[in-house]
Amino acid sequence: MSKGKLVVVGGDAAGMSAASKVRREQPDREIVVFERGNHTSYAACGMPYFIAGQVSDSDQLIARKPAVFREKQNIDVRTRHEVINIDVDSKKVEVRNIKEDSTFWESYDELLIATGASPIRPDFEGIDSDGIFGLSTLQTGIDVFKYIEKHSPKKAVIVGGGYIGIEMAEALLDLDMEVTLFDMAPQVMTTMDKDMADLIAEYMRESGVNLFLNEKLDSFEAKNGTVTSVLTDQREVEAELVILGMGVKPNAALTDGTPIETGVKGAIKVDKKLQTSVPGIWAAGDCAESYHLIKKEKTWIALGTVANKHGLVAGINLSGGDLEFPGVCGTAITKFKDLEISRTGLSEKELEESGIKYKTAMIESRTRSGYYPGSDKINVKLIAEENNGKILGGQIVGFAGSAKRIDTIVTAITAGMTAQNIVDLDLSYAPPFSPVWDPVQTAARRLV
Amino acid sequence: MSKGKLVVVGGDAAGMSAASKVRREQPDREIVVFERGNHTSYAACGMPYFIAGQVSDSDQLIARKPAVFREKQNIDVRTRHEVINIDVDSKKVEVRNIKEDSTFWESYDELLIATGASPIRPDFEGIDSDGIFGLSTLQTGIDVFKYIEKHSPKKAVIVGGGYIGIEMAEALLDLDMEVTLFDMAPQVMTTMDKDMADLIAEYMRESGVNLFLNEKLDSFEAKNGTVTSVLTDQREVEAELVILGMGVKPNAALTDGTPIETGVKGAIKVDKKLQTSVPGIWAAGDCAESYHLIKKEKTWIALGTVANKHGLVAGINLSGGDLEFPGVCGTAITKFKDLEISRTGLSEKELEESGIKYKTAMIESRTRSGYYPGSDKINVKLIAEENNGKILGGQIVGFAGSAKRIDTIVTAITAGMTAQNIVDLDLSYAPPFSPVWDPVQTAARRLV
Repeated sequence: MSKGKLVVVGGDAAGMSAASKVRREQPDREIVVFERGNHTSYAACGMPYFIAGQVSDSDQLIARKPAVFREKQNIDVRTRHEVINIDVDSKKVEVRNIKEDSTFWESYDELLIATGASPIRPDFEGIDSDGIFGLSTLQTGIDVFKYIEKHSPKKAVIVGGGYIGIEMAEALLDLDMEVTLFDMAPQVMTTMDKDMADLIAEYMRESGVNLFLNEKLDSFEAKNGTVTSVLTDQREVEAELVILGMGVKPNAALTDGTPIETGVKGAIKVDKKLQTSVPGIWAAGDCAESYHLIKKEKTWIALGTVANKHGLVAGINLSGGDLEFPGVCGTAITKFKDLEISRTGLSEKELEESGIKYKTAMIESRTRSGYYPGSDKINVKLIAEENNGKILGGQIVGFAGSAKRIDTIVTAITAGMTAQNIVDLDLSYAPPFSPVWDPVQTAARRLV
Repeated sequence: MSKGKLVVVGGDAAGMSAASKVRREQPDREIVVFERGNHTSYAACGMPYFIAGQVSDSDQLIARKPAVFREKQNIDVRTRHEVINIDVDSKKVEVRNIKEDSTFWESYDELLIATGASPIRPDFEGIDSDGIFGLSTLQTGIDVFKYIEKHSPKKAVIVGGGYIGIEMAEALLDLDMEVTLFDMAPQVMTTMDKDMADLIAEYMRESGVNLFLNEKLDSFEAKNGTVTSVLTDQREVEAELVILGMGVKPNAALTDGTPIETGVKGAIKVDKKLQTSVPGIWAAGDCAESYHLIKKEKTWIALGTVANKHGLVAGINLSGGDLEFPGVCGTAITKFKDLEISRTGLSEKELEESGIKYKTAMIESRTRSGYYPGSDKINVKLIAEENNGKILGGQIVGFAGSAKRIDTIVTAITAGMTAQNIVDLDLSYAPPFSPVWDPVQTAARRLV
């Protein structure tokens, strides 16, 4: 039972997952996708590794190309087409054909907005100089790669010590650049607590990153339109390349002047089925809200996993199914060189803000049995509700084999497990994989 | 509130975990441990890696030595003392001092039996020849190591394709031996289903193991008391070293002629607090029963993790606490060279026996994003109850980063999650760690 023509705005993870799911369920339905860039279904998270030269060709980051969607799946994907207006009453979108610089109106019966997110680019003096890049679409990654190829910069400055910041620090160190990283916070990775983040900062400094915390960006100096240095409230640093890792914001401007409501951090408001406040109009991925399973409130999280799940759930509901997206725990994972980093749930910082009473264990253990070759350090922080021991959050920093252990904590949190429940878990043990008590359990034992 | 003198029989994982826990809770209580071997608290699971030379010194496998227990923890550990009788009525144990070849009776107020398990050594002709080894205590590992050092065997035969068998196959290949492995079953790793085990067998053959399945051991030939070849129902193979990996049995003979009951596979019957059928007598570790969380019946599993958990729970209960050991899922993990292997819950084979209707997904995915360096194959099998989708079991075979993913499945099973619950999990994703859908979720998606 098709609900007529489906128009999808945005051809990356969420949009194309949804379109593909609808196509599988409804082989004859008309599906049109407008994508303002050149690419579809690409792995934005892979850009730092492409820039570092670990991935040889940007095409490898593309899961499926527009032509494949058109030919194999009969999905009418039109790249370089930007949707600039939605007329909710007449059920039409205004589309700009970027290549031909023309516009037209396209009708829809159902609409899915999957416009993603964009890097925050505050209005600092000189920020539009050449050599200063944010990372969002695959094209921005290609732009950075080409700029490095052409100009061989030796001195790089990264603004912001979040995921993008530390992944790009690794990438640019790999390219033999001198790397300076500023953050206005007193720590890197502000989604983690300072004690865990300090372990990361220490390793970054040991690895050669000039790391300056508690420093506010002031401006960029340029010569002939090209960046030459970065000024903070405390120093000036030469820069031939600047990466902005100052966070992202949802691309929700399309809803301005429409009855489609926005919510947390300006993301498009959706229910658990991913329908917006306007029936027949859906939103998914980085542009849309999610529900936080532990905070039990709306949240906004721009991550590839969430976008893929959103896309699948929206696709199921768009094709006559009935599925809710339960929500997220705030899980994230990354690495800096050999140091693996992950987190889920709430941090101590977030819990203090929320007023929930909690207890914390932070332990150091080993990734493998101490005597087994390659055994190395792992630090695990586990946070539980004070009165009932329910796990509220976890953070991991350690070497090979550390970070993916966060999935045990994610699963335990989602199931409402206590610290004692984690101690009781029949987790796997053999010397090449773990000490006899998995480090996650060693942390949990401190909480019972 | 001490319950008087505690006597512990057996000084490995379960016994010493319990004794240490009691000492922490009851600093003044009298604790005596009798251990028939020379060593305490050693990592039996590390023996194959010690034999292979990856662990330089057998002392590294010892977590804590008898003298340390005596001096730092005031636990009266007596090695080379074997308990040979229990008189339940007078609350005494008969102890043989092996070194002095004398016996004496020692009184107890509470008794913990933690006697472990021993390799099965069926009565085949020639099985007592020199050069034929089972692996159980640390001493047996040291014996194998010394035998190899002294005789430099070039041709090794392993009987049994379970955990010990495949770990020893890796170890002996590492030592440049020609390795032949027999199993009477049509597959290796009979705790897994044949389709998954076949992936392991294929890799073992590619790595140079002469693997013969469906072959029954017949006898051993020896010359001057030393093994020279192994005969099966189909062939004769030269052997200068033989490792028996034919399974283990609980060491429960001590309960013969006492009112202490035994149960599953002859293991000592215990309640969830690990007390035996005789009040005041407890049992923990490889000699004791466990409860199977999915089968919902008593089971017997001889593994280091379980022994450590048993020890902790027994220690808590022995020192006035009140804690139950909920049970096990049947989790196990190992590797053969670069191939990682893990399983939990019930296999298809076990489900067929139990009559529970189930559905299965078996997928091949990647350990990391396909484009990320080091991305490699991972196979995941997930089994769910047919009518409600509840996860019943999981099996994983794959390369670096594969096997520890079983912990997500363990946690999900323990929490009673369905396949859809796994699809919904906010598991961690970044290119160096996973495809955007974790392989466990890719398998779960096939079940919804």
